[in-house]
Amino acid sequence: MIIVLKPKATKEDADEILRRIEELGCKPLYLPGTERVVLGAIGDERVIGALHLEGHPQVESVKPILSPYKVVSRECHPHDSVVNIGATPVGGERFTVIAGPCAVESMEQMDLAAAQVKEAGAGCLRGGAFKPRTSPYSFQGLGLEALEILAAVSKKHGIPTVTEVVEVADIEAVARRCDALQVGTRNMQNFRLLKALGQCGKPVVLKRGMAAELKELLLAAEYIVSEGNPDVILCERGIKTFETATRNTLDLSAVPYLKQRSHLPVVVDPSHGTGVRELVAPMSRAAAACGADGLLVEVHPNPTEAMSDGKQSLPPELFTSLMQGLRPFVAAAGRKL
Amino acid sequence: MIIVLKPKATKEDADEILRRIEELGCKPLYLPGTERVVLGAIGDERVIGALHLEGHPQVESVKPILSPYKVVSRECHPHDSVVNIGATPVGGERFTVIAGPCAVESMEQMDLAAAQVKEAGAGCLRGGAFKPRTSPYSFQGLGLEALEILAAVSKKHGIPTVTEVVEVADIEAVARRCDALQVGTRNMQNFRLLKALGQCGKPVVLKRGMAAELKELLLAAEYIVSEGNPDVILCERGIKTFETATRNTLDLSAVPYLKQRSHLPVVVDPSHGTGVRELVAPMSRAAAACGADGLLVEVHPNPTEAMSDGKQSLPPELFTSLMQGLRPFVAAAGRKL
Amino acid sequence: MIIVLKPKATKEDADEILRRIEELGCKPLYLPGTERVVLGAIGDERVIGALHLEGHPQVESVKPILSPYKVVSRECHPHDSVVNIGATPVGGERFTVIAGPCAVESMEQMDLAAAQVKEAGAGCLRGGAFKPRTSPYSFQGLGLEALEILAAVSKKHGIPTVTEVVEVADIEAVARRCDALQVGTRNMQNFRLLKALGQCGKPVVLKRGMAAELKELLLAAEYIVSEGNPDVILCERGIKTFETATRNTLDLSAVPYLKQRSHLPVVVDPSHGTGVRELVAPMSRAAAACGADGLLVEVHPNPTEAMSDGKQSLPPELFTSLMQGLRPFVAAAGRKL
Amino acid sequence: MIIVLKPKATKEDADEILRRIEELGCKPLYLPGTERVVLGAIGDERVIGALHLEGHPQVESVKPILSPYKVVSRECHPHDSVVNIGATPVGGERFTVIAGPCAVESMEQMDLAAAQVKEAGAGCLRGGAFKPRTSPYSFQGLGLEALEILAAVSKKHGIPTVTEVVEVADIEAVARRCDALQVGTRNMQNFRLLKALGQCGKPVVLKRGMAAELKELLLAAEYIVSEGNPDVILCERGIKTFETATRNTLDLSAVPYLKQRSHLPVVVDPSHGTGVRELVAPMSRAAAACGADGLLVEVHPNPTEAMSDGKQSLPPELFTSLMQGLRPFVAAAGRKL
Repeated sequence: MIIVLKPKATKEDADEILRRIEELGCKPLYLPGTERVVLGAIGDERVIGALHLEGHPQVESVKPILSPYKVVSRECHPHDSVVNIGATPVGGERFTVIAGPCAVESMEQMDLAAAQVKEAGAGCLRGGAFKPRTSPYSFQGLGLEALEILAAVSKKHGIPTVTEVVEVADIEAVARRCDALQVGTRNMQNFRLLKALGQCGKPVVLKRGMAAELKELLLAAEYIVSEGNPDVILCERGIKTFETATRNTLDLSAVPYLKQRSHLPVVVDPSHGTGVRELVAPMSRAAAACGADGLLVEVHPNPTEAMSDGKQSLPPELFTSLMQGLRPFVAAAGRKL
Repeated sequence: MIIVLKPKATKEDADEILRRIEELGCKPLYLPGTERVVLGAIGDERVIGALHLEGHPQVESVKPILSPYKVVSRECHPHDSVVNIGATPVGGERFTVIAGPCAVESMEQMDLAAAQVKEAGAGCLRGGAFKPRTSPYSFQGLGLEALEILAAVSKKHGIPTVTEVVEVADIEAVARRCDALQVGTRNMQNFRLLKALGQCGKPVVLKRGMAAELKELLLAAEYIVSEGNPDVILCERGIKTFETATRNTLDLSAVPYLKQRSHLPVVVDPSHGTGVRELVAPMSRAAAACGADGLLVEVHPNPTEAMSDGKQSLPPELFTSLMQGLRPFVAAAGRKL
Repeated sequence: MIIVLKPKATKEDADEILRRIEELGCKPLYLPGTERVVLGAIGDERVIGALHLEGHPQVESVKPILSPYKVVSRECHPHDSVVNIGATPVGGERFTVIAGPCAVESMEQMDLAAAQVKEAGAGCLRGGAFKPRTSPYSFQGLGLEALEILAAVSKKHGIPTVTEVVEVADIEAVARRCDALQVGTRNMQNFRLLKALGQCGKPVVLKRGMAAELKELLLAAEYIVSEGNPDVILCERGIKTFETATRNTLDLSAVPYLKQRSHLPVVVDPSHGTGVRELVAPMSRAAAACGADGLLVEVHPNPTEAMSDGKQSLPPELFTSLMQGLRPFVAAAGRKL
Repeated sequence: MIIVLKPKATKEDADEILRRIEELGCKPLYLPGTERVVLGAIGDERVIGALHLEGHPQVESVKPILSPYKVVSRECHPHDSVVNIGATPVGGERFTVIAGPCAVESMEQMDLAAAQVKEAGAGCLRGGAFKPRTSPYSFQGLGLEALEILAAVSKKHGIPTVTEVVEVADIEAVARRCDALQVGTRNMQNFRLLKALGQCGKPVVLKRGMAAELKELLLAAEYIVSEGNPDVILCERGIKTFETATRNTLDLSAVPYLKQRSHLPVVVDPSHGTGVRELVAPMSRAAAACGADGLLVEVHPNPTEAMSDGKQSLPPELFTSLMQGLRPFVAAAGRKL
């Protein structure tokens, strides 16, 4: 850790800080410069963090040297992790597509959706039971009933399921009926939820917060893994920017960035990432090309009647064509669809 | 609601949509243009929203005319609301300062902090019991013990308290011991928490999400108020932008914008809003000048030893000088400190 | 155009505006609703724009229906345009790679660079003569001398060249010596430069402004094309966001979005788009996969000694491997490298 | 400067870099840590910058210690600079309001505007001759004719003028007729223009780029001052963010931030900063409260007929009331209006 002192800091200020660094069992360094004095602290940066030097009145800035995440990092675990959702692997040589409606609306809808996405080649079915909606007047999801529908449809069609969980109190009910639990963008820093998911015994699909830096996404994953659950799948789903042509700005450079720094699988959600139906297929191909391990795609048997996110949902025929168009790109990436 | 059709939409497409608008009891309008057909729907936009026309394959865009929030709007309730935290009013002619440490660290620290901030003129004491922290390795707050400390200190010094709640399961424990519950920036769209706070019987300080548009902040407040709790205080605390000189970008234009559209009181958090101690006092004055009803300021008896956010915390003497410097600006705004 | 009036607007206000719409030869519409009066204006929105209704005290908002750009739009010109830089086509069935150093530093450097990038399969050489640099103390480019080097190297190796122009006064000198002129991100809205380039007789590579919406990029292209120069190549090069892991956030969804709305070719700059050498190759593959017509890549014979942007420049061997890795993705996209 | 090496860097890599630092006459430091080797370089960071170490394959990151700007910094020049526009000082104990229409439209309009803003207390008249407009189909300004109008009106009413310059070739014509030259947000990094303004002999009002960090604004000012023109006034005018309720997000924390780091005067443009007429007065008060030296406000004799930016322009009566409302806040800030 590098500590830059303010111009008026005295030798006594420096000595006091150096002494505190030493007391923690770290190695202190004194580096006087021509315009500023710089201090160094060699050792575990989490330990040195306990000094809270950024609050010191004579400290101008504190610059950490090491990444703040550990168990999710590739330095810690050099090989790619493969996470299994039911019998469907995510990571490794497969390119896995998770598809289905934004919200579970009825047994008929999900039955149809499951058949359609499985037929087209999806390895996993998605569908929301608890829907976080911006307005209290929008459809909020069917809740427990939706979980039962997901479980029934999953059994009938032999396809594992992913659904979002928004509250610690619901984790058990969801984990009993679904094969993976999703953390939505608005809950990426709901740390209580993350910690509880660290003990839920099922894989977690962790979506990037819409204002989260990649470092923060990795730290959110660190919350789950450090509680004992190694099965985390990271999901890039677009960030908030000034651009209004798309609902979010899909940050695909996140994919190779995360893969280089972490051993966890990374999937991409081009539906929320763009919010525009016509952009879903090209961005799916781009995701495969830059090294993603799979996709999360919204598919609705009848988007015209979808109760949420209809604008970005694909009808089954467009999803089938997306899957066909994806094949040569997945092959070019050395993977199998 | 205005519905713009795609260039290739036919008269039949238009008729089908107009029929669905009519079936909902709304008045349909057909407006053929030279390059696009535009449809109108006159009536309650929340009802028309149930048609999910944005998902229709022949619809290019849907433009709502009315604001999506109702009970928090000034159209609904033209006069300023005053929310009382214990005996301290927020809104109206007082300019209310809520101050205290980022986190409750010990009885001694809070006892000192309460005495200091009250002496300097603060009307309410803040202090975090449950701390949402980016890294799992950072100090997470003292939890229940902190609530007991807050309650004891509040009683001793006769100052009401505000503390953050991060989980539905904690609401009761917090509401029993504190005078107001705060929703942090990461939970502004934790809708389950918002709904539960709508029934907690205590005032809620609702912080703007760091990526939330003002419309979304008002809809978050709508969740709480529409569940039966009218006592919501909105808080501008900075948004995430490309600028790194400050921790967040404090969006003070949010203050007059919110006051013009909503009857709820609006306070400003210049500590998180800037993340820089030297900017807290000038931004506090600016907040008073543009019409805020109060402030949320981090003050720590000894920022050098603060376990979180030391860089932005004020030591007591700087807080006292902030309060003195604020006085003429509060007076210029026609209020009392 | 849809004009929403404020709640207190009277019938007289509406009539006055409707009369002004009619006077322009457009068709006015009066649409009274339950809470707001909405007016419509059917006709050329550029004409109606001359009314400046957004400034009217009784107007709440103005919502255009049509896109503001014309000559660059696909509605105007349904087929893909192909722009030739020297003998190298951009657009159509080729996937064209423009490569070379950030800045022209010497004849030796450019001679080497030209040989290396041509050998690896690039169709065009880039190199900056006039460098816009954030600090006045950074290397500002060799200017005219660099243009002579580019011309000499181009002739020797038989490869056309692209270089940035930053000032109207330089256009002639650049156009005489190079095959295409580039507008950098900081000049995307230097409208005087755009207009002059509309008459320069050479193709223009127009980079997206780092804070420009896609609509603004298309309007910037409209400046050039409407002055008589149809040969514009759009370039996505990343936008400014809160993320600091990458220098910019490469917005690849811009590629299919632009291709759907405009007939102009679209290339991607993954070097500036990420600012990180290790991300250039994966993002190049993603660009090919989502429909880009080519790339702009920084390659330096010796990045360790590059006078600018060394961190994102590829050494020749990495560029060769990028080109090889790109091949199957370009083929999957139905194009030739 | 702190240089962090990659995990696999060898002692030889470190030695090579240390040797290069030493060759430049700077003092090299070798700081081996438990997980990374860190190097230090003590001396002029601009000199060390010439090593371009960020491009070195074994360098993970480079962290400068000192600010990159010099002549505009307060460290260099501890006292506030006062810049005179004609006879009107900006900085010091006056709070200076520069007001007028977005664009010069006619002699009558400017004559009226000059009389109105002077009467209300403005110290300087603004009006655009060359208008940078997003669309080529929008009004582009009257050009030279506008400059003549400004000069005539200035003489008649005894009020100095500020107008925007967009091109090096226009500087002389503008400098001859106006008292200060403005650099617009789109040209903040038009470095050729900045350099030329460094020799124009008149004060420059430098607006922050809509995507510019404050560090970049100070470096843009450094371009002008280092060419010999000390009379630069910095202007905060809002940045581009995800928020759409306002045209830009006015970053008022820029004011104290800039004043703490630089000796140059800082003014605020609440008109472009918000884009909403109703927000101009409260944000003007906030600007005065946080230490701004003045304002740039759009005032139009008849905003309903303004040819640009009517939505944010104030009619004369609202400007008069803004000035009156401002008075107690300016007094509270210890200044005179």
